[in-house]
Amino acid sequence: MRDFDESNITEAVVARFGQTPDPRLRQVMQSLVRHLHAFVRDVEPSFEEWETSIGFLTATGRMCDDKRQEFILLSDTLGVSMLVDAINHRLPEGATPTTVLGPFYVQDVEERPNGSVLAAGARGEPLHVAGQVTAVGGGPLAGAVVDIWHSDADGFYDVQYRDREPPELRARFRTDAEGRFHFWTITPTAYPVPTDGPVGAMLDACGRHPMRPAHLHYRIAAPGHQTLVTHVFVSGDDYLDSDAVFGVKRELIRDFPAQPPGPAPGGRVMETPWRRLDCDFALKPLG
Amino acid sequence: MRDFDESNITEAVVARFGQTPDPRLRQVMQSLVRHLHAFVRDVEPSFEEWETSIGFLTATGRMCDDKRQEFILLSDTLGVSMLVDAINHRLPEGATPTTVLGPFYVQDVEERPNGSVLAAGARGEPLHVAGQVTAVGGGPLAGAVVDIWHSDADGFYDVQYRDREPPELRARFRTDAEGRFHFWTITPTAYPVPTDGPVGAMLDACGRHPMRPAHLHYRIAAPGHQTLVTHVFVSGDDYLDSDAVFGVKRELIRDFPAQPPGPAPGGRVMETPWRRLDCDFALKPLG
Repeated sequence: MRDFDESNITEAVVARFGQTPDPRLRQVMQSLVRHLHAFVRDVEPSFEEWETSIGFLTATGRMCDDKRQEFILLSDTLGVSMLVDAINHRLPEGATPTTVLGPFYVQDVEERPNGSVLAAGARGEPLHVAGQVTAVGGGPLAGAVVDIWHSDADGFYDVQYRDREPPELRARFRTDAEGRFHFWTITPTAYPVPTDGPVGAMLDACGRHPMRPAHLHYRIAAPGHQTLVTHVFVSGDDYLDSDAVFGVKRELIRDFPAQPPGPAPGGRVMETPWRRLDCDFALKPLG
Repeated sequence: MRDFDESNITEAVVARFGQTPDPRLRQVMQSLVRHLHAFVRDVEPSFEEWETSIGFLTATGRMCDDKRQEFILLSDTLGVSMLVDAINHRLPEGATPTTVLGPFYVQDVEERPNGSVLAAGARGEPLHVAGQVTAVGGGPLAGAVVDIWHSDADGFYDVQYRDREPPELRARFRTDAEGRFHFWTITPTAYPVPTDGPVGAMLDACGRHPMRPAHLHYRIAAPGHQTLVTHVFVSGDDYLDSDAVFGVKRELIRDFPAQPPGPAPGGRVMETPWRRLDCDFALKPLG
């Protein structure tokens, strides 16, 4: 073909990708071309708008480094991450719902013993976290690997501080013979997603706030089961109805009841009020 | 809303963008969300495929600098640039067709006098280029600014050499009282788009060659007329039917007839064979 115009360009590009050897890649690229062209035909961008889009994508890529992933943030704020998550986790009744991984997960964090006190020096309300990991329709899962991570009292994750090395408010535990894990940390607070990059500028231009309701992240892996990536949200938070990344599910909202000073789990005696979170998790068996 | 799932997430995200103050930005973002989600629903990416996509976009952004624009190349190879071009140039009968700008345009190149010899030292077959710029349905356009640029005998543009400063095989001319311009250069050859980045890897994985048929780029600007961005392609080229960026239009293919050694335009006496290109351009009046 030697005459590409508005009427035939889409089918010409789709046909060109018909030579793709891998059938899955062929399917993805041909679908991408059809949907991307449909978007362009729908909005009919001016040349200046197209240039602005190229500039936005370029700036988003250039914002990324080993501690910042602006394209994941873009995916999150456009609801794409949550949609991909939902498609990949059509779960049986009784399984703990999943939600987005977010940009602050770190692989291969060192394992700590149950009962550990995270953030010994961090400001914030002390929080005791306990939970049991089970199989949907089955018994406790011993030896499951439980990664947890959350923001500090200022709304930042450890990896957002250029001058600190993880882990802080981030740890890996292993469930005991009854599938249980427990540790001390501080109560998370609502916080904004990073707003100093192109995605922050997009949210601002679109009249959207950047806030996420307070939550703890969990990633729970057990042999023979689908790895569970989820959050537990703090009930009563102002942003539960408008999470900037669309990550909230009703079943993942929990009370974090306030406790008076005095004796507390692990033999601690608390001098200030503290909170507790008891939340169990049910994983889907594979196969 | 506090329960985002596969069935409601798209409308929830569209609704969130309903607060966008600027109506055009609101329209673009809501359309983007609908089409992007439709693509995701169509292909149902695994989490690993989503990660691969994030990695591809990130690498594409990180490949960009002041002399390399990998996202434009991606837009070009997906046919998006040509579609945007077509949408923005629904031209009257008689107007010269447009095609993509490409990633190698440089703004504000110094003007040279008509008759200049570009690439005095460059290898390649000498080429005399002449043309007249007119208004569609009108007379010659004097004082029009004509930018031209093309690849060298090795298939590279000046800006692709890290150790050279433009311009080479790149110049700006101004049409005379009859709307004419003319200069000497070398005959362009077919060449690959840059293949050392993510877009090159994508083309390779999809069984697509990276070649563009031989061409000269033109950008012609005249007051009161729509700026014309186009190519002139060399007839007989092997890649006219499979341009990697879908830029070919039949009306833009021209003969570059071979000429014998001897007297040539501008008082030159050529010792080797040379070619000539005579191609006129008709611009669309504004308003």
